[in-house]
Amino acid sequence: MSSKQQLLDPLIHLLEIKSISTQNKCLPEMKKARHYLVDLFNQLNFKTKILKAKKHDAIFASLINHHSYPTVLIYGHYDVQPPDPLDQWKTPPFKPVIKNNILYARGSSDDKGQLMVHVMAIKKLLEKGKLPLNVKFIIEGEEEIGSVSVEKLTKKYSKSLLACDYLVVSDGEMPKLGQPSIDISLRGLVYTEVRVDSAKQDVHSGQFGGIAENPAIILSRMITKLKDKNGKILIPGFYKNVKKLTKEESKDLLKIHHTKNSLKKEGGLHLIGGGEKTYSLNERMITRPTLDVNGMWSGYAEKGIKTIIPSSASAKISMRLVPNQDPDRIFKLFKKYVEKITPKEIKLTVTDHHGAHSYKAPTTDPVFILAKKSLKHGFGKEPLFNGMGATIGFVPIITKALGVPCLLIGFGLPDDNLHAPNEHFNLTNYYNGIKAMNHFYRNLPSFG
Amino acid sequence: MSSKQQLLDPLIHLLEIKSISTQNKCLPEMKKARHYLVDLFNQLNFKTKILKAKKHDAIFASLINHHSYPTVLIYGHYDVQPPDPLDQWKTPPFKPVIKNNILYARGSSDDKGQLMVHVMAIKKLLEKGKLPLNVKFIIEGEEEIGSVSVEKLTKKYSKSLLACDYLVVSDGEMPKLGQPSIDISLRGLVYTEVRVDSAKQDVHSGQFGGIAENPAIILSRMITKLKDKNGKILIPGFYKNVKKLTKEESKDLLKIHHTKNSLKKEGGLHLIGGGEKTYSLNERMITRPTLDVNGMWSGYAEKGIKTIIPSSASAKISMRLVPNQDPDRIFKLFKKYVEKITPKEIKLTVTDHHGAHSYKAPTTDPVFILAKKSLKHGFGKEPLFNGMGATIGFVPIITKALGVPCLLIGFGLPDDNLHAPNEHFNLTNYYNGIKAMNHFYRNLPSFG
Repeated sequence: MSSKQQLLDPLIHLLEIKSISTQNKCLPEMKKARHYLVDLFNQLNFKTKILKAKKHDAIFASLINHHSYPTVLIYGHYDVQPPDPLDQWKTPPFKPVIKNNILYARGSSDDKGQLMVHVMAIKKLLEKGKLPLNVKFIIEGEEEIGSVSVEKLTKKYSKSLLACDYLVVSDGEMPKLGQPSIDISLRGLVYTEVRVDSAKQDVHSGQFGGIAENPAIILSRMITKLKDKNGKILIPGFYKNVKKLTKEESKDLLKIHHTKNSLKKEGGLHLIGGGEKTYSLNERMITRPTLDVNGMWSGYAEKGIKTIIPSSASAKISMRLVPNQDPDRIFKLFKKYVEKITPKEIKLTVTDHHGAHSYKAPTTDPVFILAKKSLKHGFGKEPLFNGMGATIGFVPIITKALGVPCLLIGFGLPDDNLHAPNEHFNLTNYYNGIKAMNHFYRNLPSFG
Repeated sequence: MSSKQQLLDPLIHLLEIKSISTQNKCLPEMKKARHYLVDLFNQLNFKTKILKAKKHDAIFASLINHHSYPTVLIYGHYDVQPPDPLDQWKTPPFKPVIKNNILYARGSSDDKGQLMVHVMAIKKLLEKGKLPLNVKFIIEGEEEIGSVSVEKLTKKYSKSLLACDYLVVSDGEMPKLGQPSIDISLRGLVYTEVRVDSAKQDVHSGQFGGIAENPAIILSRMITKLKDKNGKILIPGFYKNVKKLTKEESKDLLKIHHTKNSLKKEGGLHLIGGGEKTYSLNERMITRPTLDVNGMWSGYAEKGIKTIIPSSASAKISMRLVPNQDPDRIFKLFKKYVEKITPKEIKLTVTDHHGAHSYKAPTTDPVFILAKKSLKHGFGKEPLFNGMGATIGFVPIITKALGVPCLLIGFGLPDDNLHAPNEHFNLTNYYNGIKAMNHFYRNLPSFG
């Protein structure tokens, strides 16, 4: 059986690779990450295949023991978020460091650490002998740029390479240390960019001040009109069709208590007034849709002063969606509303960067009973049904195409600093996760 | 007498020097520009002195022919604005190019070209023999960063080096080609930076969307509250004390017609709805105060998507002031109002980058009659009294200290693209300006 260090080393190596999917300069590192994973799977006697994608290819690996055995498909992603702002990292983002049993590195929690839980669980099982189970991995390199090829890949391979009986995904979190969970919902996403142009070029603020329209002010006014002071999104039709969880499904959700203090600790948030004030914190984080400005820029942003009136202003604006909100429809409603609130004669450009559906698990499927048992085996505590506020574009697409249940089992923690400086992953969850998933894959063949 | 090329060459050389005062990397080029000008004045037998300044030293040059002669002090600045956005320049900003008698380069109009009008006018006069006039130049290197040392330098040297009978400044514009003018007012400036912080660091927009306050939205709401939809600035007390021009003074101003089309040509403006809608275009550009966002930034501004909620948002916000508005008082009113409209618990930082007073010329002084005569001699047309929407921090300070009249004679044109890509200077104005100022300095000794 593998020692703890042997279980950890492959993850450390993977974290040293700067696989930032959103930056073109990292293309060689993306390739390096693929090669590293392909080698790793080959060592475990998996067959591997690179699946051509729009920007960064996906890795497929399979160990088919017998066509009569059940097949599990495990999803993960090898790409990570950019590390900026770099000056806020206490240790270099691509030089993993362990302090107090916590592993610090970009991608440690999202998603390399969680992916390797499954690779190592399978590796441990294989060391014990042959499995009465077929195991497949699909590992994409475009999750952080919105899983832009997933739909195409799924359509192409759903009846062949990706065919399976169960889907397992770990790209989320447990509500707190020691409390395992299964996520039964994911939010969808519409990610847009809005740009307003008011002049051919920046002009002198003394010469044209009092005359020139100011696009930064215009954009500010438009952003102000997107939500009311209670956090209600003002796009007409936005909330139409929004579907709530059943009482049974939201029972566990109510057990997970978020407080102003716990959120301050997890996200370093001074304030938690960002969503719809008439809903509970849990609802606002998981079952309610959102609208946020992810970035905004106009004019001069360097040190000192530049006395210009900018010629344009831009914002990245995204919305998280909940069951029954269609991303294409929401983008159309958003665009129509933004057009309506843009002053006449201002040039407006609205870009649809990405859309993804939300997801709702078929919680009555008996495989959820096994998953709960396995998590209790690994973590020593009864797991809860939880929901994820984030988006995994692959899940709604493939579950719809194959009609199989998806087990969303997060091993991260809410304060792991995903997408932020000093991302980290608790190694207790890594080792307990391997133990739990080892139990799950061992028992899956004899289950049901 | 100097040929046209001889009058042009020293300007071309000066424009090749990248003297951007706002960027530290240009410190050696700032020094180079000073050395170049010092050499030029030494060749004309001026005595020169470098005046220590906060960031970039000023150049003082003087030719004292006799203590009984009248003394003129000419002001200019050798620093220029940053050239960005660089990709919008059709020719390199620091490689001067002449096309159709127009000189393209950063600083060609603001202010190197206008400064050299005076240097060359004096050079031509000196070639004819000794002058019954004392001539002084003060050329600062901090105009584009808000003339941060001018007050100190003026206080230190107003009774000695800077003592004079007349002040001449060319750092402005004529209303149109062929129509010379004298500016009788300048606007003042308050330049601030506002930053709101809502969290320790950026957070994942899926994980915390619906909970985290969004500082970009908060800042947008605050910016929206600075002006109403008619362009009226909403800071309590902002308009108190605002002084209007007399009827006599604004008579010429009314002859200068700005239209939507002329402004579109000059500034590439699609829209001219930026100021107070209840005032005329001329008033809005010259005699009314303004408020503008000069820059704004928050979160992710690169290509593609990053699913974060930013932890902070910032804006550079400046106001142009008119006679009787004190910059210190206006900054205090601004800060107080911004504090009032900031949501509780949000961390607010308001920085005062710079303040400058407005200026009103003593138009009844007889030197204005000579100046009009000289401009008619140079340009063949009766000049108008005009006003400048921009700010020259030096002018209100030194005129107040010395009690002398200031002749603000602009040789730029409204479409010179100051502070913008493809800045340029019409050479007709350069040569006619030299002719006019030659006339002015020749007649100043025998005047009055």
